[in-house]
Amino acid sequence: MINIAIDAMGGDFGEKPIIEGVLKALEAKPFNAILVGNSKILKPLIPKKLEQYIQYEEASEIFSMNENATDALKNKETTIYKAINLLKEKKVDAVVSAGHSGASMSLATLRLGRLKGISRPAIATLMPNIINKTLLLDVGANTDCKAENLFQFAIMGEVYARAIMQIQKPRLALLSNGEEECKGNELTKESHQLMKKIPNFIGNAEGRDIFNGEIDVLVCDGFDGNVILKACEGVATAIFQLLKNEVKQSFISKIGALLMKPSFKKLKKHTDWQEYGGAPLLGVNGCVIISHGKSDSRAIKNAIFQAINFSQSHINELIENELGKYNA
Amino acid sequence: MINIAIDAMGGDFGEKPIIEGVLKALEAKPFNAILVGNSKILKPLIPKKLEQYIQYEEASEIFSMNENATDALKNKETTIYKAINLLKEKKVDAVVSAGHSGASMSLATLRLGRLKGISRPAIATLMPNIINKTLLLDVGANTDCKAENLFQFAIMGEVYARAIMQIQKPRLALLSNGEEECKGNELTKESHQLMKKIPNFIGNAEGRDIFNGEIDVLVCDGFDGNVILKACEGVATAIFQLLKNEVKQSFISKIGALLMKPSFKKLKKHTDWQEYGGAPLLGVNGCVIISHGKSDSRAIKNAIFQAINFSQSHINELIENELGKYNA
Repeated sequence: MINIAIDAMGGDFGEKPIIEGVLKALEAKPFNAILVGNSKILKPLIPKKLEQYIQYEEASEIFSMNENATDALKNKETTIYKAINLLKEKKVDAVVSAGHSGASMSLATLRLGRLKGISRPAIATLMPNIINKTLLLDVGANTDCKAENLFQFAIMGEVYARAIMQIQKPRLALLSNGEEECKGNELTKESHQLMKKIPNFIGNAEGRDIFNGEIDVLVCDGFDGNVILKACEGVATAIFQLLKNEVKQSFISKIGALLMKPSFKKLKKHTDWQEYGGAPLLGVNGCVIISHGKSDSRAIKNAIFQAINFSQSHINELIENELGKYNA
Repeated sequence: MINIAIDAMGGDFGEKPIIEGVLKALEAKPFNAILVGNSKILKPLIPKKLEQYIQYEEASEIFSMNENATDALKNKETTIYKAINLLKEKKVDAVVSAGHSGASMSLATLRLGRLKGISRPAIATLMPNIINKTLLLDVGANTDCKAENLFQFAIMGEVYARAIMQIQKPRLALLSNGEEECKGNELTKESHQLMKKIPNFIGNAEGRDIFNGEIDVLVCDGFDGNVILKACEGVATAIFQLLKNEVKQSFISKIGALLMKPSFKKLKKHTDWQEYGGAPLLGVNGCVIISHGKSDSRAIKNAIFQAINFSQSHINELIENELGKYNA
């Protein structure tokens, strides 16, 4: 059976939603959950019937959200350090953490090492579009990239889309300020030339293309990925806030909103990141899923399923093989 | 009376919406409209009672949207060339064009020259937020920027917010991937240090802050500005498309949507760029408003009002004075 280490105490809301997520996942699919944290706190949260699937790895500290990611290596007693260590020692198949994402990324990169041919790992995230989902990467910590980094992100994203998202021929694009090959900044223009070698590369895409369902994998540097992710969350929040304000001012609109509630709910479900689980860290020698600090139990459950799929997919081998084709 | 040159034929939809916009503006406020284009086509569109406010500048060609902006200087018979030329010769106070924005920007920069202390002009645009509007710049053609460019954008944006948006103490921020000073890419970290000298600078802002009403002026390079602008449009379009799809599937939801129609309309009005007119080109020796190619008559009317405000504000002097303080 597959073994998943779960940083049981690293999220913004403590152990409760994380353990609830683990239990929900176990009810749907059997696996071995190795809970990393204080077992005295965790044990009472586990119902008897699921005890057989649970093991504990003691860790007395939590790496705080205020700490600097570069300090993650120093404290070997944190839940995230111990979780990554289990993976390094091959005692587990994957790690899920809703803790400090920078720390997870540093620890994974430094302790597990990078895949052959990868200069920098990337964090990939799924964005809802009007038809399905778009994989955007990097949304992580690579703020200043070179063209070869973006090329490697492209290969990793394309392989992930094939292996995990089950898309046979993923439409791969490069984020730019215009569709034409000549459009872009120096980084994207150079990256475009490298990415042209990838058969599934369809060219530059603009910001709006993230959502129109015409792209499966979109590549950008970590600065742009982060800024866009947050801007898009901001737009969605603002639209619903503005609509709420309007509705409040009219009784008839209030009735309307009530009648539309099921539609709003379905829309929310489609666009809710909690449904998507976590963000795979691609390019490290192991399988790490980085969950949002504010994850609820659903998000944790989905992140665990992602971790299971990821570790069963041999995606890291596929990435190395794919990159090997271009380096040969 | 103020003289506004209007590129009467440069938009995606030809002269109709542009002339309609001019007439709407004239009905609200008297000014002299110098229509640049083929007067034989334009004259029949002008009602007798408004003829006194209209003059014509003959221009036989339109700079096509498919042409390269750098070619804009070559053809001196285009509507945009002639419009900018009127401004250069001080025959008008401002120019409004919905034509090729790159061409407008190149022509304005090369023919009118840059303001003292400005290395690169920027295009600024208003984004709706949950309370009011945020000015975002650059959303233009400056894809690879240096810190000094972003500093100059900051000064221009801050002055514009004071002079045109009537905000006494505009909250000025720098777009980054985190609020902390240490967050960012090399460009933003260096820019942050320069912008610290500006009294109204409140620090880094994240993508979501564009919409939460806590920032008046947000500075970024033209690549990020363009990508964000389009991504945000994309989110808004996708949300309403998804909602429409959901509503279609339920009769009750359809009734709800009908009752909510006035609220949706108000939301649309608040978030509709046509209400905002055009984007001021800041940093050139003159007053140029760049309108969206798909502008309707409302957008053109609002762009004309913007041009009038701009040219009456002495904003270019203010920018030079403000920059002078830092260069002294």
